[in-house]
Amino acid sequence: MSDLVWKSIADLTRLIVAREISPVEVVQAYLERIESLDGKLRAFITVCRDEALGAAKAGESAVRRGEALGSLHGIPIALKDLCATKGVRTTAGSKILSDWVPEEDATVVARLRAAGAIVLGKLNMHEFAYGPEGLNIHFGSAWNPWDAQTHRIAGGSSSGSGVAVAAGLAAGALGSDTGGSIRIPAALCGVSGIKPTYGRVSRAGVVPVAWSMDHVGPMGRTAMDAALMLGAMAGFDGRDPTTSALPVPAYTARLTGEVRGLRVGLLRAFFLESAGLVVRQAVEQAAKQLERQGARVEEVELESAGQVAGAAFAISASEALAYHEKWMKTRPQDYAPDVRDRLRLGAFVSATQYLKAQRARQLIRREVDALLADHDVLIAPSTPIVATPVGQTEVMVEGDRRDVRASLTRLTRAFNLSGHPVAAVPCGFTVAGLPMGMQIVGRAFDEATVLRVADAYQRMTDWHLRRPPMASEAPAAPPTSQGVVG
Amino acid sequence: MSDLVWKSIADLTRLIVAREISPVEVVQAYLERIESLDGKLRAFITVCRDEALGAAKAGESAVRRGEALGSLHGIPIALKDLCATKGVRTTAGSKILSDWVPEEDATVVARLRAAGAIVLGKLNMHEFAYGPEGLNIHFGSAWNPWDAQTHRIAGGSSSGSGVAVAAGLAAGALGSDTGGSIRIPAALCGVSGIKPTYGRVSRAGVVPVAWSMDHVGPMGRTAMDAALMLGAMAGFDGRDPTTSALPVPAYTARLTGEVRGLRVGLLRAFFLESAGLVVRQAVEQAAKQLERQGARVEEVELESAGQVAGAAFAISASEALAYHEKWMKTRPQDYAPDVRDRLRLGAFVSATQYLKAQRARQLIRREVDALLADHDVLIAPSTPIVATPVGQTEVMVEGDRRDVRASLTRLTRAFNLSGHPVAAVPCGFTVAGLPMGMQIVGRAFDEATVLRVADAYQRMTDWHLRRPPMASEAPAAPPTSQGVVG
Repeated sequence: MSDLVWKSIADLTRLIVAREISPVEVVQAYLERIESLDGKLRAFITVCRDEALGAAKAGESAVRRGEALGSLHGIPIALKDLCATKGVRTTAGSKILSDWVPEEDATVVARLRAAGAIVLGKLNMHEFAYGPEGLNIHFGSAWNPWDAQTHRIAGGSSSGSGVAVAAGLAAGALGSDTGGSIRIPAALCGVSGIKPTYGRVSRAGVVPVAWSMDHVGPMGRTAMDAALMLGAMAGFDGRDPTTSALPVPAYTARLTGEVRGLRVGLLRAFFLESAGLVVRQAVEQAAKQLERQGARVEEVELESAGQVAGAAFAISASEALAYHEKWMKTRPQDYAPDVRDRLRLGAFVSATQYLKAQRARQLIRREVDALLADHDVLIAPSTPIVATPVGQTEVMVEGDRRDVRASLTRLTRAFNLSGHPVAAVPCGFTVAGLPMGMQIVGRAFDEATVLRVADAYQRMTDWHLRRPPMASEAPAAPPTSQGVVG
Repeated sequence: MSDLVWKSIADLTRLIVAREISPVEVVQAYLERIESLDGKLRAFITVCRDEALGAAKAGESAVRRGEALGSLHGIPIALKDLCATKGVRTTAGSKILSDWVPEEDATVVARLRAAGAIVLGKLNMHEFAYGPEGLNIHFGSAWNPWDAQTHRIAGGSSSGSGVAVAAGLAAGALGSDTGGSIRIPAALCGVSGIKPTYGRVSRAGVVPVAWSMDHVGPMGRTAMDAALMLGAMAGFDGRDPTTSALPVPAYTARLTGEVRGLRVGLLRAFFLESAGLVVRQAVEQAAKQLERQGARVEEVELESAGQVAGAAFAISASEALAYHEKWMKTRPQDYAPDVRDRLRLGAFVSATQYLKAQRARQLIRREVDALLADHDVLIAPSTPIVATPVGQTEVMVEGDRRDVRASLTRLTRAFNLSGHPVAAVPCGFTVAGLPMGMQIVGRAFDEATVLRVADAYQRMTDWHLRRPPMASEAPAAPPTSQGVVG
C-alpha cells in the first residue's frame, strides 16, 4: 500500500477518477505513514485524522455518484500551520496562538478543498515563520529525513512542509515564503516548490510575517505537482487587496518539456560565488543540461545583490514587529528566545531606514526586471549550503566560516524584495546524501515559464525521484483507531 | 489695460483665439502688475520677463498663422518654485537649491506649455514646501493681499500661488499639496484650487516633500479656471510610476451648474466643530445654498479623524527626512530654523510607528470611501481659522487658545492620507474682510464631480469675484526695460 504515497498528484487523480483507487485508501496510506514516521520526523503539529477520513469518504461517494470532480480530487495535502483552518487549531508554530481555532479557512485552503484536496493536518514550522532553520521549541524541531543519524535542520520556516513532502507524509503541502521559507526547506529536503509572484496568491487568513514580503505557495515532489496545486490556489481574492486580477493560466498545459531557444541567465556573482563547490557545480551542471536541450545560457549579474540583506532586514524586521508589538509587550516570555531577539531588532529600525530600504527595493526590482527583459528565466542556487545539524550556528564554506542563518537566506531574499516568481527544484546530492536546490526566477506573473523550465529539468534528471532514508523505514505499528491527533 | 488680468481663462482664450487681444498685451499687463505690486506682495521668487514676452510673441505669431492652438493658448500662469523649469532656477524656496537650474521641465510644466500657457515666473513658497504658513526667510514671506496694513500669512506652502492668483499677478498658478498646501493658501487668499486624486497628476520634476502624500494641482480664480488647467496637466506619465492610466475626462464639459439630486455629506464633528463661528456659519450657509439648488445635504462623520494628525505626522516627517537626510547632515545651517526643527522630528519616528501610521491611513481611506459610497461629495471648511499676522503662533478660536500651525492643516490632511480629490473655494469673508474657504471632497478620480459642485456654487455666489485691497493699488511706476528678474 505504501507505494501509493509516491505517486504523482496527476497519477493519483487519474486513478481516483477512474475508480481504480479510493480517496479513502490514499488517505489511509498517508495516515499510516504519519503514524509510523512522524514521531521522529515531527513534520506535523496537528494531524486531522478523522476529518481527513471523513473528507476521503465524502470524496469516494462523489466519485461513485459521478459528480463533477475538482483537479485535486482526493489528493491528501498538509498545510503549514499558519494557514487558518476552520475548526482546527492554527498555531503558527507558537505558544501564543496554540489555542486559536479559526472560524474560517484561509482563502488558499478553501480553494484547495474546493478543488477536492483533503487536508491531512497542520505542519511544523519555525515559530511565527520567523527563522530560516525551521526550529521550534514548542512542538519540537522537524527532523531532516535525509539523515537518520544526526538531527539536521529541515530548513525553514516551512520545515514541516519540506519534511512531509520529502518523506511521503503528504502528496503536497502549503508553505509560505518571506525570505526564502518555501525555497530553503525545498532545497534542504530535496523537494520542489514555487514562491509565486507577489499578488498571485491570496494571503487572506494566513498569519503574516512581513506583509510586503510574504508569499504563499505550494510544495510538492515535482514541479508538475506544484503546478497542479498552484492552479487551484492562485488568482484574485476580494479578501486580500494585494492580489492581482490577472487571469491564471492553465499551468499544467504549459509544461511542455520544451526549453529550446529559451534564454537563461545564470547568476554567478554573489549567487554561484557564495555557494560551496558542490552546490556551485550542481547548478552549473543544471545549466549545461538546459543548454543541451536547446536553451541559451548566459552569465548575468544582479549588481544590487549587495543591498539585499540590509533592505530585507529593515523591511521584514519592522513589519514583523508592527504585527507582534502587542504580544511582545504582554507575552514576551512565550516566544522562543531566537524569535524574540529577532523581533526586538525591529525596534531599532527608523522610519527613514525603512524608507531607504524600500528605495533599495525599487532598485533591486528594476534590476531583476531588466535582467528578465533579456532572459526568460534566471537560475541560481537556492541555498549556498546543505542541511546543517540542529544547534550548529556556523558552517565552513570553502574554508570560510559562515553564519548558518545568514547563509540560508542569502540567495533567496532578493526575490521576496522584488516579488518575482521563483521555483525551487532539487539539483543534486552531496556525497553524504544531502540534497541541494536550484532557483528558477521568472518575470512577474509568469509562473508558467518558471514551472515549464523546472518541469523540463525534471524530465531530464532524476534528483526529484530519490527518496530519503527515513522515508523507507517500515511502519513501527499498525495505526490505532485513536489516531495521532496532535 | 489692467482689466485684462481679471478675465477668466476661458474668456482670455476666446479673445486671443479671436485675435481681439494679443498674448503679448496680456503678458505685458501681468508683468506690469508684478512690477508694480510684487515688491510688497512677494508672490514671485523669479520673474521670467523676457522668456514670457518671447513666448507671448511666439503665441501671437501662432495665432496669426492660424495654427492649431492649445486650450490655454497665451494664458499667463506662474509656477510654485518647486516645479522644475528648463533653464530657469528652481529654488523650492530654499537656499540649498538657490542655484539649481534644471535641464528639463517638470511634466506638468511641459504639459501646460504644450497647451499654450506662458510662464510668468516662479512663485514663493514655504521653504521646501514644509510649512503651512507660507513663510520664507530666504526670499521674504509672501504678504496676504487682503490686509494692506498688517503683514498676514498667505497660507502655505503654496503662498506665492495664492497671492499671485488673488492679486491678479497670474491668471492661474501651480501649487502642491502634502498636508493642505493648495487648499490652505486658497482659503487664506480667497482663491480656488484643487488637490487632485493621488495618481491623477504627475509629480515628475517636482521637488518632493513626502512622496506618498504629495499632490500637484492648479489654483485659479474660479473652479472653471482650475478645471481648464487640470485638464491640460492630468493623466498618465511614464516619468511618474504613481500616475494612473485612467482616462482624463473633459472637465469643463462636466461643469453643468447642476447639483439637483446630488448627495452632499456635511462633515460636522471634528471639521465644522473645530472651526471658528464665522467659518462654521459660512460653510453651513454654503450647504444651504447647495440644498436650495436641489442637492440633498446630510451630516456625516469621519470617525477616524482623530487619527489623522498622528498618522500624517509620522508619514510626512519620515518621508521628508528620507529626502533631506544628506543635506541635513552637510548643510543644516542653510535651512530656516522652523523647517530644520521639523525635519529633525522625522528621526524620532520608528519604522513600526510609520507602519502603524500607514495602517491608520488604510482605515481613514476606507472610511472616506464608505462615506462617498452614500454621498457624491463631502464638504467641510478648508481651515478653521483665517489669515493670522506673520509671527503670531497662537490664535483664539471661540475662547480656546490654538496653535496656528496645527490649526492650518487640521482639516486638510485627512485627504492627503486618503488620496481623494478635494477642491477648495472661497465661501465668505470675515467682517475684517479676510476670506474663508470650503473643501469639496469627491471619490477617487472623480475630479469632475468635485469641480462641478465647486463651479455650481460659484454660479450662485460671488465670493470668488471680490478683489483684495492690495490688488487695486495703482502701479507705482511704469515697467522698466530691465524687468524684475528676481
